Amino acid sequence: MTTPVPDGTRFVLPDGAARRVEVVDTLRALYRSWGYDLVEVPALERYDPAHPRAGQSFKLADRDSGVLALRSDFTPALAQLVRSHHPSVAGGARRPLRFCYAGTVWHAIDPELARTREFTQVGLELIGVSNARADAEVLHLARASVRAVGLRPVLEVGNPGFVRALFDVAGVPRSDRDAVADAIDRKDRSDLRDLLERARLDLADGAPAAALLHVPDLYGGREVLGRARAVAPWPEVQRELDRLEGVLAEFEDASDLALDLAMARRLAYYTGVTFRAYTPDFGQPLLGGGRYDGALLPAAAGFSIGVERLLRAMASTGPLLEPPPQVLSIDDAGARRLRVGGVRVVRALHVDRAGALEEARERRVPYLLVAGRLEAVAAETGERDRLEALLTAGGEA
Amino acid sequence: MTTPVPDGTRFVLPDGAARRVEVVDTLRALYRSWGYDLVEVPALERYDPAHPRAGQSFKLADRDSGVLALRSDFTPALAQLVRSHHPSVAGGARRPLRFCYAGTVWHAIDPELARTREFTQVGLELIGVSNARADAEVLHLARASVRAVGLRPVLEVGNPGFVRALFDVAGVPRSDRDAVADAIDRKDRSDLRDLLERARLDLADGAPAAALLHVPDLYGGREVLGRARAVAPWPEVQRELDRLEGVLAEFEDASDLALDLAMARRLAYYTGVTFRAYTPDFGQPLLGGGRYDGALLPAAAGFSIGVERLLRAMASTGPLLEPPPQVLSIDDAGARRLRVGGVRVVRALHVDRAGALEEARERRVPYLLVAGRLEAVAAETGERDRLEALLTAGGEA
Repeated sequence: MTTPVPDGTRFVLPDGAARRVEVVDTLRALYRSWGYDLVEVPALERYDPAHPRAGQSFKLADRDSGVLALRSDFTPALAQLVRSHHPSVAGGARRPLRFCYAGTVWHAIDPELARTREFTQVGLELIGVSNARADAEVLHLARASVRAVGLRPVLEVGNPGFVRALFDVAGVPRSDRDAVADAIDRKDRSDLRDLLERARLDLADGAPAAALLHVPDLYGGREVLGRARAVAPWPEVQRELDRLEGVLAEFEDASDLALDLAMARRLAYYTGVTFRAYTPDFGQPLLGGGRYDGALLPAAAGFSIGVERLLRAMASTGPLLEPPPQVLSIDDAGARRLRVGGVRVVRALHVDRAGALEEARERRVPYLLVAGRLEAVAAETGERDRLEALLTAGGEA
Repeated sequence: MTTPVPDGTRFVLPDGAARRVEVVDTLRALYRSWGYDLVEVPALERYDPAHPRAGQSFKLADRDSGVLALRSDFTPALAQLVRSHHPSVAGGARRPLRFCYAGTVWHAIDPELARTREFTQVGLELIGVSNARADAEVLHLARASVRAVGLRPVLEVGNPGFVRALFDVAGVPRSDRDAVADAIDRKDRSDLRDLLERARLDLADGAPAAALLHVPDLYGGREVLGRARAVAPWPEVQRELDRLEGVLAEFEDASDLALDLAMARRLAYYTGVTFRAYTPDFGQPLLGGGRYDGALLPAAAGFSIGVERLLRAMASTGPLLEPPPQVLSIDDAGARRLRVGGVRVVRALHVDRAGALEEARERRVPYLLVAGRLEAVAAETGERDRLEALLTAGGEA
């Protein structure tokens, strides 16, 4: 039997949909309270082979023989919005713009390999400013996002600029850099040593290339900065550590932060601080982001949260978010009063008490409302007092 | 110059995005309070040439040589969800399912003709039950949707079954029915007479075909039912009026309802009551829906709201929904207390008072928070008392 929906897509039933709305609303409220404005960008984009995810995008032919693509990432679309509506900032003016977003992205990956091809992403961008204080704000909001949904965060923070500066000092050939960065990021020490030896770099103690061998160990608390300064004393490398130290100095509360100087993913894209957030006992990162000055805009940092993954991480802890309706009603005026008080009230499809009682039993709704009176359909739920107070309060919707 | 986004799509800037969220949240809360559960359906669908909007859908080639389409309508997708997850109801069992939805649909119409190809729709379906009480619930919620966003509704209600029954009694040839129904729906009396004459139908007073000539005039209040009964006394036509009368009898408050027995759109799809909601001084319908038993599911009725159009209708009346940030802060602890109280507080990118004051002026933020004290950046806004109460309340986020 074929599935009723395309591979990698799915129906989201009431409990799941209510939970998604709750998570998205919670994050949006957090960002809003920090002055981030929600914006929306089209789901249909002009196809651009230079787009960072061009290889993963669903393409469509448009009427005018143009090619469209489904949105695969919010960051390039937000950069486009800034170029259109804030050209001075796109041109280099230093003026902070704070935007957040929530919506669907599509990745045209092989459905045999991936469970999902249609995702919900929520995130933010702080554009038009580049300094330690801006970095710290974005990092803080990444950590706060995980806390806002009731999970304990572990925010791993790195600076690919540190690895890049070491590459320069050690003279790692351009052609080897991606592979070496990848080995560092994976903390694969033997692969890393092989690559450096094959590049015929000097690995004697104190030589810059030898310092690279220590990078996978530069993980931990704030003391990592001191160890890094000892391992890599060259000024251009120290400057990258200064920036990171400046970011950390911004935190009144450094709990749940971990430094990982081996973060070296997407060296050509991320230019400053990068980070990923995890939660204990869940292996995959919940969000990722960083500073990408010059990649799409002169100055910008941000992060993006995969909502489906966040929901999976929450699955074992969270309560059911959508309470079933509490009252079935054949009293329209009374139902209005209860709804004003936030109670979910279903209008009975029967007008007679016996039929409505049967309907309430079938739906497992605990109370039936008839002519201003609540009848318990099964055992009392303990909600009667609150419901009766609403009924007699006399408010009207 | 080409636009930065595909024709018929657009960026939605902060004021517009906040307003859209407010409208969608308001409608979702209304439906939820009536026991409708939010569900989500994929935006990517298998392409189906039998889909009611197949001609208007964006098509995509999938890897396995399958063809996908972007969602162009929620109703068929919800019917699919019911077939997958509630097969007994899809098979004819009478058990009410109440679902609502909110999301994007795409119509691949010529961008020269249409301003928009990417729309937001919100709506609901009451599935698994077909009677006057269910019809009335859906009609009431359509009217309440318009009221919920602060507009005055005019809900025009018809019953295509009335026109269909008259066609049967008058013997209108199958091949002429679409054209005649269209003339009735457009209230084009001369076109209607021409079509009936060309079909050689008896238009003498009292003949069933002559009754069709009166249908465009059957518009108004509840008295329209009496006029319709006089014009079309045949039992099969009267039965259709009985159903409509039963629906109206369900309303304790019939305000803002109008009967329009000339509604004859999509005769093959809508089987019972149909309706469109308008608001005074705005020409286009804000929503449309009706009962479509047998079209996609054995028993179902619902409606769909075009959010962009609703926002245009609201544009002249509504207030700005997203207040700009009220406070710029270099006091993180104080900022937390204000945010807990619902105040939007931007963290200053300067740590010194003079720099932050300049930043507040540039952003036109009325207050600067420094070490627990609020400084008015320009004239006082009258919010100081509330803000100071929050600062001294001692709550922590």
